[in-house]
Amino acid sequence: MIGSFQIRTDLALEAREGYDGDESRIRGVTVEEEADAQREIYTTTVRIETENGARAIGKPVGTYITLEAPNMSSPDEGYHREISGELSRHLRSLMGEQGKSVLVVGLGNREVTPDALGPNVVNNLHITRHMIREYGKNFLSDEETECISAIVPGVMAQTGMETLEIVKGVVDETKPDVVIVIDALAARSTKRLNRTIQITDAGIHPGSGVGNHRNGINQEALGVPVIAVGVPTVVDAATIVNDTMEELVNQMDGHQEMQRLGGALGTLDSAQKHQMIRELISPHLNTMFVTPKDIDETVKYLSYTISEGLNMAFSGKG
Amino acid sequence: MIGSFQIRTDLALEAREGYDGDESRIRGVTVEEEADAQREIYTTTVRIETENGARAIGKPVGTYITLEAPNMSSPDEGYHREISGELSRHLRSLMGEQGKSVLVVGLGNREVTPDALGPNVVNNLHITRHMIREYGKNFLSDEETECISAIVPGVMAQTGMETLEIVKGVVDETKPDVVIVIDALAARSTKRLNRTIQITDAGIHPGSGVGNHRNGINQEALGVPVIAVGVPTVVDAATIVNDTMEELVNQMDGHQEMQRLGGALGTLDSAQKHQMIRELISPHLNTMFVTPKDIDETVKYLSYTISEGLNMAFSGKG
Amino acid sequence: MIGSFQIRTDLALEAREGYDGDESRIRGVTVEEEADAQREIYTTTVRIETENGARAIGKPVGTYITLEAPNMSSPDEGYHREISGELSRHLRSLMGEQGKSVLVVGLGNREVTPDALGPNVVNNLHITRHMIREYGKNFLSDEETECISAIVPGVMAQTGMETLEIVKGVVDETKPDVVIVIDALAARSTKRLNRTIQITDAGIHPGSGVGNHRNGINQEALGVPVIAVGVPTVVDAATIVNDTMEELVNQMDGHQEMQRLGGALGTLDSAQKHQMIRELISPHLNTMFVTPKDIDETVKYLSYTISEGLNMAFSGKG
Amino acid sequence: MIGSFQIRTDLALEAREGYDGDESRIRGVTVEEEADAQREIYTTTVRIETENGARAIGKPVGTYITLEAPNMSSPDEGYHREISGELSRHLRSLMGEQGKSVLVVGLGNREVTPDALGPNVVNNLHITRHMIREYGKNFLSDEETECISAIVPGVMAQTGMETLEIVKGVVDETKPDVVIVIDALAARSTKRLNRTIQITDAGIHPGSGVGNHRNGINQEALGVPVIAVGVPTVVDAATIVNDTMEELVNQMDGHQEMQRLGGALGTLDSAQKHQMIRELISPHLNTMFVTPKDIDETVKYLSYTISEGLNMAFSGKG
Repeated sequence: MIGSFQIRTDLALEAREGYDGDESRIRGVTVEEEADAQREIYTTTVRIETENGARAIGKPVGTYITLEAPNMSSPDEGYHREISGELSRHLRSLMGEQGKSVLVVGLGNREVTPDALGPNVVNNLHITRHMIREYGKNFLSDEETECISAIVPGVMAQTGMETLEIVKGVVDETKPDVVIVIDALAARSTKRLNRTIQITDAGIHPGSGVGNHRNGINQEALGVPVIAVGVPTVVDAATIVNDTMEELVNQMDGHQEMQRLGGALGTLDSAQKHQMIRELISPHLNTMFVTPKDIDETVKYLSYTISEGLNMAFSGKG
Repeated sequence: MIGSFQIRTDLALEAREGYDGDESRIRGVTVEEEADAQREIYTTTVRIETENGARAIGKPVGTYITLEAPNMSSPDEGYHREISGELSRHLRSLMGEQGKSVLVVGLGNREVTPDALGPNVVNNLHITRHMIREYGKNFLSDEETECISAIVPGVMAQTGMETLEIVKGVVDETKPDVVIVIDALAARSTKRLNRTIQITDAGIHPGSGVGNHRNGINQEALGVPVIAVGVPTVVDAATIVNDTMEELVNQMDGHQEMQRLGGALGTLDSAQKHQMIRELISPHLNTMFVTPKDIDETVKYLSYTISEGLNMAFSGKG
Repeated sequence: MIGSFQIRTDLALEAREGYDGDESRIRGVTVEEEADAQREIYTTTVRIETENGARAIGKPVGTYITLEAPNMSSPDEGYHREISGELSRHLRSLMGEQGKSVLVVGLGNREVTPDALGPNVVNNLHITRHMIREYGKNFLSDEETECISAIVPGVMAQTGMETLEIVKGVVDETKPDVVIVIDALAARSTKRLNRTIQITDAGIHPGSGVGNHRNGINQEALGVPVIAVGVPTVVDAATIVNDTMEELVNQMDGHQEMQRLGGALGTLDSAQKHQMIRELISPHLNTMFVTPKDIDETVKYLSYTISEGLNMAFSGKG
Repeated sequence: MIGSFQIRTDLALEAREGYDGDESRIRGVTVEEEADAQREIYTTTVRIETENGARAIGKPVGTYITLEAPNMSSPDEGYHREISGELSRHLRSLMGEQGKSVLVVGLGNREVTPDALGPNVVNNLHITRHMIREYGKNFLSDEETECISAIVPGVMAQTGMETLEIVKGVVDETKPDVVIVIDALAARSTKRLNRTIQITDAGIHPGSGVGNHRNGINQEALGVPVIAVGVPTVVDAATIVNDTMEELVNQMDGHQEMQRLGGALGTLDSAQKHQMIRELISPHLNTMFVTPKDIDETVKYLSYTISEGLNMAFSGKG
């Protein structure tokens, strides 16, 4: 899929799956998979180590850890705690040693349900920076607690500013050691919606997130390490249509009445097929997203799980 | 489209367009169109007068007035007032003489942005019933003001109750003369999203609304006349896909590389094509909806326009 | 305090403290106290058994259980679970045997922070009635789970209806075995704010709750048992002033410069003092409330604690 | 009142009233009053021109314009437009010539009803900066429209940062010509609540606003002119009590039974009385505020009126 017809995904996992060639041979990219079948948590670590690998996958150099868990958005509190623990563990591995000051950024629009993930996560964080500045670190019950600040910058239609401008201003003024951005992502497939968490030290790059950031929010832009935590909560409407068209083109052998049709389409090469699909997809669809009807409940549970993961990581319990 | 493969629309206007036969000949259905080109407001009145017409269109007997205005969700306050005035005029024509007690019901889920239309409209109404009961009608500045009460019942996942159960309970207890329900609808096409208001005296019938009510909310169920005001804010995900597939099947002559393909598909009849499309659409999609990325702004403007239309109708200014 | 000058409190505990006479001798009222010093949870059970006792205390006949815990609104999750457990235990004792259908009513105004307790509690409940009606009781993982429905009726300024009208309509239509109402209360003293839960089988009586219900919501009105769970989140502004004035009148001996003053005021009897205070309190104050500046965080924690208590009681874990 | 016992007010108007001496003689302070009796809009302009004047009044040097209108929070749309027009006119006089880039800052906590004024105002602004940067100024229908951006920074308990840190960061990064901050204020008296707008070019100084900012947000801190627009929505709880006590001390002659008491208190001097009052006021009260029960409706109307005033000022209609 990566190529002439760009289908949007914010997940490195999906970008890799879209790679046409033999993925085991992409130079500069390593992949590790880990299955915890009992707890139904599946972890994939994609390491893009060179610019060559970055070009092949279509994502910047960095480590991309993906947690997949089918019941992530169900209301089972014990299960959420397991996921929060896994998230905390991976965050700590990317954050390095204890004792840092961290700025958490809740990206997205709190007025649009599937995009409210970032703002909601920030709502449930234990904020400590102002207390530490007032009373010193000793007042904290647990000495390992980091110095935590947070901001919900809003989206460009609300602020008139690029998210990057706001975050960069705040970083320059308050000088955190590391920035953690939380964002709702667009997935390539409805199957990954609301059951996947991606954690990466590559930050946010242009065009990712539900709201499609125009500027990257990463170490290059901010001057400090940026860890991004994202959950796909929407699929682009154009993607949904494309998927079904692909299905038509690829699996038509299965239907008796399509066999002749298969013969006809079979004469088109891949680029021609994509051109045809692109022309058929209404331009209206580019400003539309697809999301489940119960997205309110789902975002509530996911936000809670992620904020607990962050709280655990910051208190040294992760 | 109406037939073997049911595509969901809550708009009588669209249901009529989907009618395969010569629509001018549907017995029991009359259609009037009115174009106000200068103000860009287009009004269609579909009157379904017999059970035969109801079966043909797939909607209950009643009057369905549709206002279409391309700029309905733009932030132009003066234009909104025009639309509010039109809405008020049609409401008054369906409500009958002045001086009634009205219960307004804001259907939908205030936590899901495109479904929050009904709750938002209720937020901006001038509620008078409690004042009239306390101080009498004389306290009102304008003598024609109706006795207005309102409720936001919530959705079944939040209440465990059918919306109808709650509304029926409240109607039996407070005995309004007429009920007006406000709801976000599902359209057949993205082109009608957020620019169309449907006003009908047929109430809400099962399966309509973004959240898909299981029981009708209408005069038969409540024992008093029910006027429904709806705006399409979503399209079903399956509909989006189907539309593009239809396009492929119907318009393939336009693309050079598809001409041979056209020959192949041309041998399938309509039912075969729909069967093929249905099998290709993922079952996941039935629980998904499609909505524009700026749905927060849009719902804010639309809610304000509709609540003003209601306030005008209730104060005798409509 | 009960008598000529009525200071408002929704807590039976405080009403009893205000009783002028020797409280151990109020006929028809029994009081039990239980202190769990280690967990810092203090429980007082006031049983008003006769109409004579009801008159003396100024509350209807019934059992009033009050949990007091100084850290109830602190962000300690483990501690909240203890409180939830206690609440659950008392709810079960008032609800009687398992297997009932319960309607939970979240009273109050979700737009006014200290009055949003009831609506917030309902947001976090596990609603089961619609699932049980669709799939039967067997689908539930825990067989003891009750059939739970819930409603947030809104306040009169929003609906034009008495809360009782809405609740009675829904009860008549859905016929639950028991109703549980959740409400934010007004306390007599700032010391009890946000650290006290009152659980009573007397329901809500006129004039209680932050919003001051005009009609009682109780077994007499609804025809089914009504359990009320309330937390004081505000103090009436007039009460705050009165308290300080009382302090002036009662404790002036402690200040050297007030001793002469004490002599003068000492010649006034109790009724004269209250009359004086009443005249000094601005009539503006009757429409005002007093609440802490961090009420947003406090209501968030309290709502979570109470909804967990209800969820535990309903799942048989209480 | 200004003196040994500091009662908090954010209104220069009230600070001036509290000045013990003959106010007409405060050097460095001029006062102009304008009454529009027909429209019931009263305007007071206090100009603090010297440091001496600033010390006497307890507010920084600057121009403080106060609009008072008794019906400011009533739901009369036409009347709101009058107030918006007045606000716009004063804003323009402080902003200087057209064509500036403006950053609007909505101070306060959107989760606490009377403190949500600033965030709500920002919600209704026409934001243009991102459009101008994308398409140039020509796309705007009205050429005089300023380049508008906006931010809701949140409060310290949510962010861990001083509001000033966030605003300064954003100002340094985006370099607006002028900053306009919107804030809910604390009044000295319940009589001014929700019917007064203060507009000043002195910015926000430490200790003002409902949430009590610790650092000033003004030209000195930000390096660009700062205009503050504030509405008093709360009174400190301690102020309410103090007021009534003052009343007791000052007006006791009016009550027969207090005449003897008057004699006793009369022997105390002003400082002794304040000392007595201070000791009687519970320390709890310093973390409490007083606000009207219908604050949700009031803040909704006020926010709309102010955002319209800003929109008018920015579009050159003011």
